[in-house]
Amino acid sequence: MSSTPQPIHLTALPGIPAVQPGADLPALILAAAQRAEIPLQAGALVVCQKIISKAEGRVVALSEVTPSAEAKKLAAEDGCDPRQLELVLRETARIVRRGHGVTISETKHGFVCANAGVDLSNAPAPDTAVLLPLDPDASARALREALLADGAALPFAVIISDTFGRPWREGLVDVALGSAGIEPIRDLRGSPDLGGRELHATTTATADQLAAAAGLLMRKDAGTPAVWIEGIEIKGDGDIRETLRDPATDLFR
Amino acid sequence: MSSTPQPIHLTALPGIPAVQPGADLPALILAAAQRAEIPLQAGALVVCQKIISKAEGRVVALSEVTPSAEAKKLAAEDGCDPRQLELVLRETARIVRRGHGVTISETKHGFVCANAGVDLSNAPAPDTAVLLPLDPDASARALREALLADGAALPFAVIISDTFGRPWREGLVDVALGSAGIEPIRDLRGSPDLGGRELHATTTATADQLAAAAGLLMRKDAGTPAVWIEGIEIKGDGDIRETLRDPATDLFR
Repeated sequence: MSSTPQPIHLTALPGIPAVQPGADLPALILAAAQRAEIPLQAGALVVCQKIISKAEGRVVALSEVTPSAEAKKLAAEDGCDPRQLELVLRETARIVRRGHGVTISETKHGFVCANAGVDLSNAPAPDTAVLLPLDPDASARALREALLADGAALPFAVIISDTFGRPWREGLVDVALGSAGIEPIRDLRGSPDLGGRELHATTTATADQLAAAAGLLMRKDAGTPAVWIEGIEIKGDGDIRETLRDPATDLFR
Repeated sequence: MSSTPQPIHLTALPGIPAVQPGADLPALILAAAQRAEIPLQAGALVVCQKIISKAEGRVVALSEVTPSAEAKKLAAEDGCDPRQLELVLRETARIVRRGHGVTISETKHGFVCANAGVDLSNAPAPDTAVLLPLDPDASARALREALLADGAALPFAVIISDTFGRPWREGLVDVALGSAGIEPIRDLRGSPDLGGRELHATTTATADQLAAAAGLLMRKDAGTPAVWIEGIEIKGDGDIRETLRDPATDLFR
């Protein structure tokens, strides 16, 4: 039995402004951390996907989107903008379910989520859509490296999060889309439980727990898209993409 | 735009011993909180389902279970103990999926989870299974009232958590099974986003976020089944059961 783990502290980085395409996100984050006197060492920085996508220019004006016949058909079924459906289809590798005005997509990254992550809320301009980053693990790695080069210090992890709905349960919860500098899954299989019985099926989705915890401070109306988490074990390294369930063993695809 | 939210702190309550049926859980928790000098006020206490179930006697010796023909058939398919399958079937309202040695059940409460929550790890004795509490919301209310009567003070919330697997993503994440003294879902629909656009579909599963955050300190091998969370807004009141998705609008049932 381990000793009692140390406390965990979560702090929202204050005063990060609205992010525009091409913004220098590492500089904005470092400035916010300095304002809060957070050293960006021995912890994980959780950053909302939306500001990553905006900085990377993953923003599309609906006026520039020409919907396909398929997008028009689906939009008519859903009662929504065919240009939005067109973007959803472009981001989608496979439609998993449709109903109640929502398309549940498997994205080209392999995430399963509503509308392939295409989002019109908190977009930088009206009638603009924000898409998921092309490669959120690469975005996490790049942000981590930029911050380590300019003030952050090891051990230091970056997680990119987004809010997803879930089957069976109401309400959104933040999950990890990308990670760098931390193992996204902690594997306890084979270690003994408190009674000495071997733990089965006990892999913990640490990165998703961190994302959900950070989500407590990332309310969409609060303007706090980055949260610093201290007191956790920062070890290993791995991509979120590699932890997505193999479709062959997935009972819901 | 709100001001930056205050930091959140999570502390594992130290030294809670292995819980046996009939244990005085409020007394064990209060003693642990006193050891850690935690006042149990202005925060949420997240308690692992396992110790709730044990204290409530939701523990079954497999030797006392006679498997039905159906349980024997399914257990033969899965290569596992037919008495365990018998318990799973007794806890199940409807089988949602089966495969890869796992039964995904809709429990009699309405939760959708692996093996109806029947768990043989960290059981109080070998060949013993722990079942989910009969009514986790009632368990949360009772624990909250007992603690408020004996040292805790308002505002004070109790959440009962368990680790569930998810479709599409590997690894377990803690979710809320029961809640008392807090609104389990925060509804932001109708409030403006940062650009003044109305937020749609933005209900946040606060109780699940709190459970996932607490899970960071509840590693199964650590013996820390209760976590105190400070710095969050404690308002409203509601049952988890009422926040489960209506099967009629669920695309995955």
